[in-house]
Amino acid sequence: MRIQLLLTGNEIMSGHTVDSNSAMIAEQLHSKAYEVYRKVTIGDDFDLLVEEIRHISTHSEVLIINGGLGPTVDDLTAQALATASGQAIVIHEAALKHVTDWYDRRKIRFSDSAKKQALLPEHCQLIDNPTGSAVGFYCDYQGCLIICTPGVPSELRRMMNESVLDLISQRFPNQLTPSTLRLQTFGLGESFVQELVNKNYPHWPKEVELGFRAGMPQLELKLAIQQAEHQKLQQQCYQWLQQEVGDSIIGADNCSLAEAVLTTLKQQQQTLCCAESCTGGLIAAMLTEVPGSSAAFEGGVVSYSNHCKQQLLDVDSQLLQQHGAVSEPVVRAMAEGALVKTGADYAIAISGIAGPDGGSDDKPVGTVYIGWGKHNAISVIKLCYPQPRTAFQKMMAAVALDMLRRELLGLNLTPSFIKRYIVE
Amino acid sequence: MRIQLLLTGNEIMSGHTVDSNSAMIAEQLHSKAYEVYRKVTIGDDFDLLVEEIRHISTHSEVLIINGGLGPTVDDLTAQALATASGQAIVIHEAALKHVTDWYDRRKIRFSDSAKKQALLPEHCQLIDNPTGSAVGFYCDYQGCLIICTPGVPSELRRMMNESVLDLISQRFPNQLTPSTLRLQTFGLGESFVQELVNKNYPHWPKEVELGFRAGMPQLELKLAIQQAEHQKLQQQCYQWLQQEVGDSIIGADNCSLAEAVLTTLKQQQQTLCCAESCTGGLIAAMLTEVPGSSAAFEGGVVSYSNHCKQQLLDVDSQLLQQHGAVSEPVVRAMAEGALVKTGADYAIAISGIAGPDGGSDDKPVGTVYIGWGKHNAISVIKLCYPQPRTAFQKMMAAVALDMLRRELLGLNLTPSFIKRYIVE
Repeated sequence: MRIQLLLTGNEIMSGHTVDSNSAMIAEQLHSKAYEVYRKVTIGDDFDLLVEEIRHISTHSEVLIINGGLGPTVDDLTAQALATASGQAIVIHEAALKHVTDWYDRRKIRFSDSAKKQALLPEHCQLIDNPTGSAVGFYCDYQGCLIICTPGVPSELRRMMNESVLDLISQRFPNQLTPSTLRLQTFGLGESFVQELVNKNYPHWPKEVELGFRAGMPQLELKLAIQQAEHQKLQQQCYQWLQQEVGDSIIGADNCSLAEAVLTTLKQQQQTLCCAESCTGGLIAAMLTEVPGSSAAFEGGVVSYSNHCKQQLLDVDSQLLQQHGAVSEPVVRAMAEGALVKTGADYAIAISGIAGPDGGSDDKPVGTVYIGWGKHNAISVIKLCYPQPRTAFQKMMAAVALDMLRRELLGLNLTPSFIKRYIVE
Repeated sequence: MRIQLLLTGNEIMSGHTVDSNSAMIAEQLHSKAYEVYRKVTIGDDFDLLVEEIRHISTHSEVLIINGGLGPTVDDLTAQALATASGQAIVIHEAALKHVTDWYDRRKIRFSDSAKKQALLPEHCQLIDNPTGSAVGFYCDYQGCLIICTPGVPSELRRMMNESVLDLISQRFPNQLTPSTLRLQTFGLGESFVQELVNKNYPHWPKEVELGFRAGMPQLELKLAIQQAEHQKLQQQCYQWLQQEVGDSIIGADNCSLAEAVLTTLKQQQQTLCCAESCTGGLIAAMLTEVPGSSAAFEGGVVSYSNHCKQQLLDVDSQLLQQHGAVSEPVVRAMAEGALVKTGADYAIAISGIAGPDGGSDDKPVGTVYIGWGKHNAISVIKLCYPQPRTAFQKMMAAVALDMLRRELLGLNLTPSFIKRYIVE
């Protein structure tokens, strides 16, 4: 059974608006084991709209049209569907009542353009719109169920949930019970994992689809099955990934590095602080973005200037003069200073040259020292990651969190992605 | 001349990823006065991909394919284009050199799946990818210029800018010389500005297209003209916007709030520090994301726990007990403490309840105190902005920066968007 989407609106063609509706529709369908087969997006072009409706309805069993139900002249969906399917367009009394009530409740003068929202194809059925002025509607044409939905995201969401999904599943009952296992990883590349599977797991079961979603800085691995009975195979693949790259798996679903670190700290009843120079507060921001972070995060210092390193973290001015702000002794002193000031159990400290300026021959842009650990047990690594400023900051903040995560969980502290950038 | 887009990828069909690439492509084409006629999106389905390429290429002069250039098995674009256009698929030496160099620079072992990115249709020309491993490529088929671009947004953006736009305009020269004036604003809504124009500027020249791009937290205003001779009109509209909403205009092009604040501080030879509780380092991170921020930003404190407020900012424990951490006196003390410790001229301080937990009857979730100013001259406002945690943090960090910006520039300190959330 093929479902297609037809999205209409000049604003989504011009790029002024990013289309988030089709993703919402796809996710809601996915939750009922329906997939979107194909999606077409066009502007407010009547002839093209008619042509697409005719073409798509002959090539699929369900067509969801989104947008173009509003009161303005460039809202063409009802007229286009009527023309495409050879129906007259008439006032539907129930729709007229809905739109007039809607305007009355808001004390807005009811205009002719508003009345337009009740002018619908003669033989269509209405779909309630609990929040908006324009009702949805559907009809059958060339064996295709055509459903027209509003472009306003909040209205669309409720209409999908409360009407459209039922409409589709009544018409096309569905035996599948898909389930996707999502794993968040850090330090792995798509091609690396794919290679690993091809090389070490040639008999990977075809029932388990391995998918990737590259984020910055994380990579999501997905194990998707279509039938509940394949869950055992899904688990096998998961176990195998655990063996092969387990130390790079942060957690399931949407788990972030910061969340993984905070969860582990809470389990171990430990607390964390940080002292940031080149990341300028980004690590603290990543941590405090997580609800409930205060249970394990004490606070931190953004010691951007040397003056701050001395005043806020008691870093010895001697050290700064002798070794420079970007050096192992200073990062160590930043970590110790933060531990003393905040009273936390663990510290993360980082100092580097984010660029574009500030590099030198012996310390080029991209040079960074990352420290983590407990009082008198601070580990420090020196990396060189010469990337654009924000990419450098995001990646190094992630590396710092990951090193602490590995320390807390007793995992390998020199994974390949670290070895790659390490400077002896 | 019709341009069509073909987007491919299971992740954008499943709804896991919202497609922002097509909006970016449309905007860049728009900047050269080209419009997108139609857009088709499909999953990683080889046969369908071949069918779409054949169909679209007979119905348009330019086809931009986005996605499917990567190293994994579900990256099918090169093979599909070769099949659709009846070409062999062969290793392109230049592409192979590009991808091997890319892996070498990153010290990643070069794998067979990586090599796949050099297997391209025999007669295609390469397009340089300055940042990614997969080159772009193009060829002609059925009188249609077919251009294949990478799905990674940052790679796509540069390839469009540096190669694809030129490729199209050389092939299809266009007499228009559009120019768009982009203004970054904070605190304005799209409909507010549109109504202002309708009401106070009924004779807005039709030659100047007013566009919007809602960002979080900024709103971009665009004044687009199609002919150089209309620049005077464009300037008139700009002047008018300056009169009406000038204090909400941060700067031109991509100027961020943090950048605007830092630029003004540098001009006034002043420096800044911050003391953050509920934003947890986000303000500092926004500031230090700007290259050269160290010239005006001294550093800051993330005083998440009360202990940190006392130890790092010398906030009196009495104050904390008497008024609570989320209170005017404490925010004032945080600002003063940060000024003393960092030696900066100006401070920003913020303390609030980001939620979802931690609210009370007299201080519900969303309550926040924002302070800014110089020693002994700290202004504090109390707002209530009950939104999801990250939205709350982003918006309140932006408000804090904007209040300082307004102070530094001597602008109105109670704009309407602040009045809306202010709590007496």
